[in-house]
Amino acid sequence: MKLNFLYSNIQADVAAIEEELRRAVASEQAPLIEEAALQLLDAGGKRIRPIFVCLTARLGQFEWNQVEQAAVAVELIHMASIVHDDVVDDADVRRGRPTIKSKWGNHVAMYTGDFLFAKSLEYMTKILNPEAHQVLSNVTVELAVGEIEQLRAKYNFDQNVRTYLRRIKRKTALLIAASCQLGGIVAQLDPKMHRKLFLFGYYVGMSFQITDDILDFTGSEKSLGKPAGEDLRQGNITLPVFFAMEDKDFQMKLRDITEQTSKDEMQTFIKEIKASGAIKKSEAVAENYLQKAIAILEEFPPSKELRPLKQIVQFLDKRKY
Amino acid sequence: MKLNFLYSNIQADVAAIEEELRRAVASEQAPLIEEAALQLLDAGGKRIRPIFVCLTARLGQFEWNQVEQAAVAVELIHMASIVHDDVVDDADVRRGRPTIKSKWGNHVAMYTGDFLFAKSLEYMTKILNPEAHQVLSNVTVELAVGEIEQLRAKYNFDQNVRTYLRRIKRKTALLIAASCQLGGIVAQLDPKMHRKLFLFGYYVGMSFQITDDILDFTGSEKSLGKPAGEDLRQGNITLPVFFAMEDKDFQMKLRDITEQTSKDEMQTFIKEIKASGAIKKSEAVAENYLQKAIAILEEFPPSKELRPLKQIVQFLDKRKY
Repeated sequence: MKLNFLYSNIQADVAAIEEELRRAVASEQAPLIEEAALQLLDAGGKRIRPIFVCLTARLGQFEWNQVEQAAVAVELIHMASIVHDDVVDDADVRRGRPTIKSKWGNHVAMYTGDFLFAKSLEYMTKILNPEAHQVLSNVTVELAVGEIEQLRAKYNFDQNVRTYLRRIKRKTALLIAASCQLGGIVAQLDPKMHRKLFLFGYYVGMSFQITDDILDFTGSEKSLGKPAGEDLRQGNITLPVFFAMEDKDFQMKLRDITEQTSKDEMQTFIKEIKASGAIKKSEAVAENYLQKAIAILEEFPPSKELRPLKQIVQFLDKRKY
Repeated sequence: MKLNFLYSNIQADVAAIEEELRRAVASEQAPLIEEAALQLLDAGGKRIRPIFVCLTARLGQFEWNQVEQAAVAVELIHMASIVHDDVVDDADVRRGRPTIKSKWGNHVAMYTGDFLFAKSLEYMTKILNPEAHQVLSNVTVELAVGEIEQLRAKYNFDQNVRTYLRRIKRKTALLIAASCQLGGIVAQLDPKMHRKLFLFGYYVGMSFQITDDILDFTGSEKSLGKPAGEDLRQGNITLPVFFAMEDKDFQMKLRDITEQTSKDEMQTFIKEIKASGAIKKSEAVAENYLQKAIAILEEFPPSKELRPLKQIVQFLDKRKY
C-alpha cells in the first residue's frame, strides 16, 4: 500500500521526511544501530503517522521545519515500539523482511528500540510548542501501558471486547490521534480544533487497527509479509476472534492454541473464523469508527485541505493490506 | 551507602523526590508495571543523580517544583536503563534483590523499562526551560549508543582503554553530567556556569563508574548485592582488567571467560587482578577525575552551597560499595 501516491501534493513532504528519518538513524558511533534501523526503514511501512501530521498541518499556518520534526518524532516512536514488539512476539519476519531481533538477536533489538525512542525525543525537543511535548509524552506512556496489557492478555480467552478496545486504543489509536493533533498544534490551530483532530485520529486509529486485525485472517502470506493467523497463534486475541468466540464450542477449541500450533492447524481456525461471520461483524465496527472520523471532519469549515483527509479515510476503508 | 545522610539539609528534598518517584510509577491501569517498578525503587540505590540536581540547583534561584521534575526525570531514565541492562546481563540479583527480569521475565522487564523511560519524558516536559529538554534528549541518545557499544564490546579482549572510557562516558558519566547541569539550568544560572556544572558532573561520573568497576573486584558479595567479578564474567571489560591485561600471559587466560565460568574460577581471576597492581592504578585514574571535578568547583564564586558538592566528591573518593 503506497498511501503517498494517493495525493500527489504531499509526495514531496513524505520524501523529505523519509530522508530525515534516514539522517535520524545515521550513527557513526553505532554502526550496528544504524544498520538495524535502516533495515527497518528499508522494509517500508505506510508512514501513516507522518502523513497525518503533514495533512492536518495544512489546515493551518505552519513552518515546514516544525511539521517535519513532529512527523519524524512520531514515526520514530512507532518504529521503536515495533522493534520491541517483535522481540515479545518472537517475530522473524515483518513486511516480508527479517526483523531486527531475528537478524541480530533480542538484545540488539531492545537497545535499537531504546535508541529510536531516544532519537524521537531529540526531534520532539525541537518542536517549539510545549503542548506538543505533552501530547507526545502522554501517548508514549499509554503506549508502554498498552504493551504490558497486551503481554498480559496473551492467550487469555476469558477477556472481553472492552479490554481489546482499550488495548488497541493504547497500542495504536492514540499515536495516530497524537499525530493528527500535532499537525494541528504546529499549524497553530485553535486548541478546540486540534483537539477535534485528536478525536479524528483516534477514530481512524481504532478502525485502522481493527482492519489490521481482520487482515491477519483474510490477507495472504505474501500481502501480509507474515503467515496469516500469526496474531492469534501468538495469543493476541483480536476483534474477529471475540465475535467467533460467541460460539462457545469454538471458544473451547481456541484454548488449545499455543506458539507451537502449526500453520496447518491455524488454517483450520482461520477457516472457522471466516465462516462464523466474525469478519463481517468486525468490518462493521471498523466502518463505524471511520464514519465517526468523517463526521468530525464535517465540523471543520469547508476547505480543500480537508479533501486528502477524507480520501485517506475512504482508502483505509477499502484497504486489503 | 546512604548519601543523603551526608547533608541533612537536603534530606527533606530527597524524601520528597522518593515520594514523587513512587507516584510516577503508580499505575492503576498497569498493576504489573507498578509492582515491578516499586520492587526496583524499594531495592534502594544511591539516588546520586537526583541528589546532584538538588545540590547544583542551590547554586542559583530555583522553584522547588522545577528541581523536583528534573530530579525525577533523570532518576527514571537511570531506572529504565538499569532494567534493560539487567535483561542483557541476564542479572538475577541487583542490590541484593531479585531483578525485574528474574521475577517476571525479559518481556515484562523490557516493557517496564519502556514505561519508565516514557514516564521520564512526562516529567521532562514539565520542565519549562527548553535547554533542559535538549540536555536530556542528547544524553538519552548517548546512553542508548553506549548500551549498544557495551553489548558489542562484550568478551572482546582486543579493545583498548579509550573505547572503555568512551563507553563509561556514555553509559554513566553523561547522565550524571546532565543531572548537574539540569540543577544549574532550573536555577537559572548563566549558561557558562551550568556548562561548568556539566563538566563537573562528567568528571564525577567517570570517577564514579571506575570506582564501581573496581568494587566489582574488591567488594564482598554482601556489600555488592551480587557476586564479585560478575561484570567480568558477563564479558564487561573494565579498567582494572585493562591494567591487568598488560601482562600478556594473563590476557590469554582471560580469553577463556564465558558466562559459564564458575564462581570459584572467577575467584582465581579476581586474585590475579588484585595482585597485579591493577586496582591501585585504576584508583589513581578515578582519583584524577575527582581532582578535576574539585578544580571545576574552585572556579565558582565562594558559597556555602558548594560545600555539600565537595563533600560528596570526597565521599565518593572513599566509598566502599
